[in-house]
Amino acid sequence: MKIGFIGLGIMGSRMAANLRNAGHTVVVHNRTREKAEHLLSLGATWAASPADVALEAEAVFTMLAPPEAVRQAALGGDGFLRALAPGRLWVDFSTVDPSFSREMAEKARETGVRFLDAPVTGSKGYAAEAKLTFWVGGATVDLEAIKPLLECMGNRVIHCGGQGMGSSLKMVMNQMLGTVMAAFSEGLVLGEALGLPRKELLDALLDGAAGAPFLKLKRGRIETGNYEAADFSLRWLHKDLHLAAVSAYDSGVAMPVTNAAKETFGLAVRGGRGDADFSAIYAFLAGHSSTESRL
Amino acid sequence: MKIGFIGLGIMGSRMAANLRNAGHTVVVHNRTREKAEHLLSLGATWAASPADVALEAEAVFTMLAPPEAVRQAALGGDGFLRALAPGRLWVDFSTVDPSFSREMAEKARETGVRFLDAPVTGSKGYAAEAKLTFWVGGATVDLEAIKPLLECMGNRVIHCGGQGMGSSLKMVMNQMLGTVMAAFSEGLVLGEALGLPRKELLDALLDGAAGAPFLKLKRGRIETGNYEAADFSLRWLHKDLHLAAVSAYDSGVAMPVTNAAKETFGLAVRGGRGDADFSAIYAFLAGHSSTESRL
Amino acid sequence: MKIGFIGLGIMGSRMAANLRNAGHTVVVHNRTREKAEHLLSLGATWAASPADVALEAEAVFTMLAPPEAVRQAALGGDGFLRALAPGRLWVDFSTVDPSFSREMAEKARETGVRFLDAPVTGSKGYAAEAKLTFWVGGATVDLEAIKPLLECMGNRVIHCGGQGMGSSLKMVMNQMLGTVMAAFSEGLVLGEALGLPRKELLDALLDGAAGAPFLKLKRGRIETGNYEAADFSLRWLHKDLHLAAVSAYDSGVAMPVTNAAKETFGLAVRGGRGDADFSAIYAFLAGHSSTESRL
Amino acid sequence: MKIGFIGLGIMGSRMAANLRNAGHTVVVHNRTREKAEHLLSLGATWAASPADVALEAEAVFTMLAPPEAVRQAALGGDGFLRALAPGRLWVDFSTVDPSFSREMAEKARETGVRFLDAPVTGSKGYAAEAKLTFWVGGATVDLEAIKPLLECMGNRVIHCGGQGMGSSLKMVMNQMLGTVMAAFSEGLVLGEALGLPRKELLDALLDGAAGAPFLKLKRGRIETGNYEAADFSLRWLHKDLHLAAVSAYDSGVAMPVTNAAKETFGLAVRGGRGDADFSAIYAFLAGHSSTESRL
Repeated sequence: MKIGFIGLGIMGSRMAANLRNAGHTVVVHNRTREKAEHLLSLGATWAASPADVALEAEAVFTMLAPPEAVRQAALGGDGFLRALAPGRLWVDFSTVDPSFSREMAEKARETGVRFLDAPVTGSKGYAAEAKLTFWVGGATVDLEAIKPLLECMGNRVIHCGGQGMGSSLKMVMNQMLGTVMAAFSEGLVLGEALGLPRKELLDALLDGAAGAPFLKLKRGRIETGNYEAADFSLRWLHKDLHLAAVSAYDSGVAMPVTNAAKETFGLAVRGGRGDADFSAIYAFLAGHSSTESRL
Repeated sequence: MKIGFIGLGIMGSRMAANLRNAGHTVVVHNRTREKAEHLLSLGATWAASPADVALEAEAVFTMLAPPEAVRQAALGGDGFLRALAPGRLWVDFSTVDPSFSREMAEKARETGVRFLDAPVTGSKGYAAEAKLTFWVGGATVDLEAIKPLLECMGNRVIHCGGQGMGSSLKMVMNQMLGTVMAAFSEGLVLGEALGLPRKELLDALLDGAAGAPFLKLKRGRIETGNYEAADFSLRWLHKDLHLAAVSAYDSGVAMPVTNAAKETFGLAVRGGRGDADFSAIYAFLAGHSSTESRL
Repeated sequence: MKIGFIGLGIMGSRMAANLRNAGHTVVVHNRTREKAEHLLSLGATWAASPADVALEAEAVFTMLAPPEAVRQAALGGDGFLRALAPGRLWVDFSTVDPSFSREMAEKARETGVRFLDAPVTGSKGYAAEAKLTFWVGGATVDLEAIKPLLECMGNRVIHCGGQGMGSSLKMVMNQMLGTVMAAFSEGLVLGEALGLPRKELLDALLDGAAGAPFLKLKRGRIETGNYEAADFSLRWLHKDLHLAAVSAYDSGVAMPVTNAAKETFGLAVRGGRGDADFSAIYAFLAGHSSTESRL
Repeated sequence: MKIGFIGLGIMGSRMAANLRNAGHTVVVHNRTREKAEHLLSLGATWAASPADVALEAEAVFTMLAPPEAVRQAALGGDGFLRALAPGRLWVDFSTVDPSFSREMAEKARETGVRFLDAPVTGSKGYAAEAKLTFWVGGATVDLEAIKPLLECMGNRVIHCGGQGMGSSLKMVMNQMLGTVMAAFSEGLVLGEALGLPRKELLDALLDGAAGAPFLKLKRGRIETGNYEAADFSLRWLHKDLHLAAVSAYDSGVAMPVTNAAKETFGLAVRGGRGDADFSAIYAFLAGHSSTESRL
């Protein structure tokens, strides 16, 4: 099967390489060509624009950062959507909000293209080792058609419901990520203020009953005060909390704790920590200045 | 070494049995004698009152539920504290607030008794298998004296600092437990309102990056809606969030997310869910009536 | 000047009557004709549809309840916007959100119509006595053209900025209304729980330094527990708090207290109090059942 | 009647002067004697210690700042309480928390002294003009005995219930003050971020339905950014919100909005604004640096 892959960042490049290594024909495009060099050396071919990707591909995969980058690649001047033959498939791996996924699904429908939203979880290490999890929204028949390809890049494929539901699930996971990070940070700040030794405190909170796996990965940042080179920026997490709050209102759901976390992240963004890793909410709550902690 | 053990509930009876099984002489007391029968069959001896325990013991261990029960056993009409010879040791395993621990430490000091606060973490299964963790506040020399005894009942002994610091650490752990439970519940309620299938949603939130170990233990309650026979009641967790909020004020620390969780638990208590397991915060946020969910 | 007036509810009918009483020619339309009878008796003329209003009017005024009613009247099958000659003026008195006002402004621009958003404050008594306040967004030249007409209906006309700014100001006023109502209700519930006599407590809170004028108007509802026949429904206030929260995110502003109020209103809506007057947030916080308080 | 007056600060000195001007014999004491000079020139007599005040007075009035100052004056080395003859009256005008008032009531009872808590509202101008309001907790018979004296200093005397109830009412008023200040500040920050002109915005919020009287008094501070020389410091208001939150927990009441305000004030205190007037919560929320706003 001939696959088009647009977006060769940290995750996308590793995902596309696994497709190629599994023997698939891969046509790639990226805003800057140099990021494609490794893939071309593996036998992928270069397309000069998103539209050119579509001319050759049976399915188009996108892995792009902000929703606007997805919109531009799909619907911009040389976007791929109009160039893609009816009946072909577009799978968007980007993390976007559910209403954006549904909007893209609608745009695809208008041109006869089948659409799946399939955001992923897993680190760049997992991307390299084909151990990603795909959270998929869309028709069962479309997912079945593409599943073997997803399984070249990950080891779990979860069907969450109709179009937009993959993005919905990812949004809820990020809501929990942010709120738990804040809950942990508050406990850590309190414990330190009470005079508890930091090592024992971190051991207790991270290895104990409430110690979520992702918190353990943040331990090093908290111990060194280095929040640069964000894995996931505080600004983006704030946005996801906002999107969750809006969805909650639209759904008639109350989320008092999540909204408190949202506003706490909002204060941290306004305080200049938007580009820091989202674990910097600890530094904000601890009152560390930006000279004490690298943001 | 001759040990007095007061409080033979679910945890205390298993802890005392492990002391006895390790060959120690154990004198026991409990408000109701029948709970002592199994221990007596193992060779423990019965004392008719807390004061009688103290007359024979080199160290007194207490494992009691509300702080007032500890106060009564130590300082009541036939309390053990005045009966305990100066220089002897009292270790309180009860989960109480730090200021109560410090008050008991002060009362012990007045009578020349050495005091450690040493709340535990671990289930009744862990108690039976001697796998508890002890979080200890007090003097190093006192902890060293008693450590071999603790290691008959658990496999981790963490020294957290001076008197009261064991209770402080436990309070912070419970603050995180409650706030994470609320964060998870809000995500679950939102996901369900968005139409995500419950199994996939629970899998995603519980097995994912933010899936804390204790949350997995609550899955069954949430799936069945049965919050009776609380492992840890919503009312007590609300109290611990309150104590953490008070400590935070006293320490000059802000905890906006924890306070939001505190008030959400408060609304649930007022709505009649105080005796339910604290995971019933999910049922409260989901708007389930008490006929839909067993509280 | 010949004026079209669409929307003859409690406020609109009184406003249109004041225009007519000032000698202006008024063409009216309302979804149900009977509400127009009094105006017709004053000399107004009836138009069968919004489009018919536009054919005869130099300016169209709208006073409608939900944004969708405004959209329908302006852009629906027999909407007035396409029927209105370029250069004519549309003034929307409806309380809508700022982005909706800006969207209507854009729709008007496309057809060459000038647009002002001009939500009002004041009761129905004020509407009858021509004592309303108009909060106007739009071009100065357009406001000047219409100001004498506004002054037939009110005694204060405040220019808040460009299109959408009238609605922005109204939204902020409602944000404060809701949050202050909640702050007062929490104080009242606490005071009653502490055993303070209700009369003295209400006197203290309402006549004291923090006693906002609108709170005094709610005293009767709180004393009788009657929240029916809402002046302003809890559901609509919840919506305004939500809109304020969304605007805050979009503007990079943190509003932790307003968001807490939003979620508290959200819980009250979910508890079945959406149609009650928004002062019923007191009954929610007090834990009054709907049999104790009429919702 | 011979009255002892302890605490001659901004309020106390004016209150004592009004007693003297009404012809009463007044014995005064203050930590620093110079503050008493004006009163002595009016004919008051000086007492060298609180105990000396008690020896001569039929009633002792206290108007002191933190609870600890009250405790020291009453129970310290030369405290007045033991020196006061049984059956005499102590009225505490200080703003303290209800549990402190009840503790003082208990101490008074032990020595046979009758006690009233009677915190005041009103500015220093009101104190000078004898227009204060007294919120009184204690026995009716005791209040009746002292009422003519209170009426020399104020024009409203409200009996709130038994001992501690005056302080309870004052605490609830301050809870509302702080939460409303935060609600207003958030609206103001949002309105400014949306581009609304500040004058129109302040007019709308302060003169509108939610414009509480005390907010109008803060307008000057907000317009000039000068929060120095606090009328009521942000730190003390934070403390009152904390006391209200603790009382709410003890009373089984939920206050989600007040707690959010409490934490927002807490963040502002931690950010170095504790000594500023409490209206500086606006500067905190607006993200003004301490160089932009004088704290």
